[in-house]
Amino acid sequence: VSGRGGAAGLEASVRPGSSTPSARVAMIGAGQLARMTHQAAIDYGIELHVLAGSPSDPAVTAGAGYTLGRADDVVLLRRLAAGADVLTLDHELVPLDLLRTVASEGGVVRPRAEALALGCDKMFARTAVSELGALSIQVPAFAAVQHTSDVVEFADRHGWPVVLKARSGGYDGRGVVIVEDRGAAERVLAGVDPGGAPAWVVEEHLEIAAEFAVLMARNPSGHTAAYPPIGTLQVEGICRELTIPADLPEDLVRRGESWARSIFEGFDVTGVGAVEYFVTRDGRLLLNEFALRPHNSGHITIEACATSQFHQHLRAVLDWPLGTTGLLRPAATVNLIADSTHEFAGRLPHALGVPDVHVHLYRKAPRPGRKVGHVTALADSVPEALERARAAAERFVR
Amino acid sequence: VSGRGGAAGLEASVRPGSSTPSARVAMIGAGQLARMTHQAAIDYGIELHVLAGSPSDPAVTAGAGYTLGRADDVVLLRRLAAGADVLTLDHELVPLDLLRTVASEGGVVRPRAEALALGCDKMFARTAVSELGALSIQVPAFAAVQHTSDVVEFADRHGWPVVLKARSGGYDGRGVVIVEDRGAAERVLAGVDPGGAPAWVVEEHLEIAAEFAVLMARNPSGHTAAYPPIGTLQVEGICRELTIPADLPEDLVRRGESWARSIFEGFDVTGVGAVEYFVTRDGRLLLNEFALRPHNSGHITIEACATSQFHQHLRAVLDWPLGTTGLLRPAATVNLIADSTHEFAGRLPHALGVPDVHVHLYRKAPRPGRKVGHVTALADSVPEALERARAAAERFVR
Repeated sequence: VSGRGGAAGLEASVRPGSSTPSARVAMIGAGQLARMTHQAAIDYGIELHVLAGSPSDPAVTAGAGYTLGRADDVVLLRRLAAGADVLTLDHELVPLDLLRTVASEGGVVRPRAEALALGCDKMFARTAVSELGALSIQVPAFAAVQHTSDVVEFADRHGWPVVLKARSGGYDGRGVVIVEDRGAAERVLAGVDPGGAPAWVVEEHLEIAAEFAVLMARNPSGHTAAYPPIGTLQVEGICRELTIPADLPEDLVRRGESWARSIFEGFDVTGVGAVEYFVTRDGRLLLNEFALRPHNSGHITIEACATSQFHQHLRAVLDWPLGTTGLLRPAATVNLIADSTHEFAGRLPHALGVPDVHVHLYRKAPRPGRKVGHVTALADSVPEALERARAAAERFVR
Repeated sequence: VSGRGGAAGLEASVRPGSSTPSARVAMIGAGQLARMTHQAAIDYGIELHVLAGSPSDPAVTAGAGYTLGRADDVVLLRRLAAGADVLTLDHELVPLDLLRTVASEGGVVRPRAEALALGCDKMFARTAVSELGALSIQVPAFAAVQHTSDVVEFADRHGWPVVLKARSGGYDGRGVVIVEDRGAAERVLAGVDPGGAPAWVVEEHLEIAAEFAVLMARNPSGHTAAYPPIGTLQVEGICRELTIPADLPEDLVRRGESWARSIFEGFDVTGVGAVEYFVTRDGRLLLNEFALRPHNSGHITIEACATSQFHQHLRAVLDWPLGTTGLLRPAATVNLIADSTHEFAGRLPHALGVPDVHVHLYRKAPRPGRKVGHVTALADSVPEALERARAAAERFVR
């Protein structure tokens, strides 16, 4: 099933009398990232067509053209690529071998599967980044885990507690467990097939002073553009708040930018992506993970920066000139996270009573722990912006 | 015919699994104003449904839900109003008696027909504004025209040349003629039915030093919000460039704002509208005309102000709290006006090579004189912004 405005989908997307789109972009996934990409695509006269799991997906209710289907259906992926100038993604849960197949047949897939692999598998990513050795990118101590004994051996070297992380599929705090001793490790690993590929990574437990993200864009011509550093506040593994510019020493930010650029260049990444960093209490900068697509941390750029991450992602994957990334004003974003099935939409007018806030609702049905929107405020200072964004966000829940 | 995403239109607009929209807004018209309103509606989780003349209309290609039909079909208007929290408009070419009918049956129409009449008929508007006498709003000298002798009599008092303006339906320079003498007036009025209602207004010819617009929002609760003054540069009656803030004496801006507020309050206008002013070489402030809907001059607010006119219009017609209107940075907008059937879309990457510009393409098929998009730049000063926006706009045509 595909559609938009009653038309027959991708092939029928140019209607008589309308101007030719400036480009056709297909996107695997139809969540809030695709929704906001669609808003940017409208500015540029780009026809965005998404692969959606359901007609209630956020990008579909925003009016993007869509095809219903699954990301593991190579026939659909092939068709999406054939109908577009470029095929891109709003999530990593895509079988990379299928993307390789589509690319080998001439489909333009950006970022390429080889780069996407970095974002899909923590073990692979850590290893690959360590192997960009000349760049001396620091990561937390880590090891692959097959048996409980691997965890114990790691803890003997680095001390308890340790952190167990699922190699792939984890997000918003899922797939991350702090483990205090052997018994706890055993319980986490109870379901693991001892003969299968390691599904977990063990990592040193860090005393974290701050976390921040470097949002980076790169186009196939090799141009890169980094955004000002974005502070991220995680609570139970879920990103709750963003600030820009992050309040960090400049040398540390420059190092983070330089590492991010090295990764984008080293792995020929195209599009927008976020590299997330830990700053430890003893002043170390450590690369945590990355996402090679528009990223939750980049939502703050919609209002705060000269070019939003969504405009930038379109420009990057289309090999257009990248936009400037300068900060307009200090800003803060508070994610709206459902804690029940309570609808946020009805509280919007109340929230808009807080002056000078920008509200984005994704039209996602509320479920506990689910991000259903965000609020951004610009101000003369980050604390002032944060205060205002928090005030508006609170009005959605009380 | 109605649709969106293959669904059956208005009634089917909430899909299983998606969150309830925060509001349902129906809009008569599906041009670029509706297109940009749709982008704002996505932020707020609002379901926008437009009455479109064609599936190639700009709001439809942007993915707004739509019904195909004409604005003079009362059955359609009734259905649109019934399916939405509020029915509003992106143009004035709507039979006001039909809107009155819909409103009398309980439909929520904003702005109301009585206010819209001001924007539809120059003669009525001038007369009505003059009658808000206590406010001493100044307008150019004018008179209704039935016969050539009315023009001559007017010119005897105010001198040649005079300006003839169509009472309604004129835009982008159409329906405005500068007339040097009796013979020229005769030629313009040749087709006029001498027994019919006066179709033209005659107006004094002004030496204009500057033009600006006051963009104003008002909600049914009676709150108003004025934007900083927007300078408008008209060439042959077509608005070519916008600047914010307009470079004008502050007392003159305050007077313009105060007149605009009086009109919005005096005629119970709801929604966003623009009041356009002349500043004459001898320093007079004269009200030219107004448009009681989001307006071309307000496009500059998308990037330059804390709340865009499109977000503001939705907030105003829904009786939500109005947004702040403060300026983020000085800005300029250059309209992209087709001078042939040359497609602008293919030149977009070239235009984006100019750093720090925001391009909006409406996906309108190019026809000479037609606005097909606009470019906005923010900078430290208006002249710098203007230079950059012009540089990008030029890249679309050469």
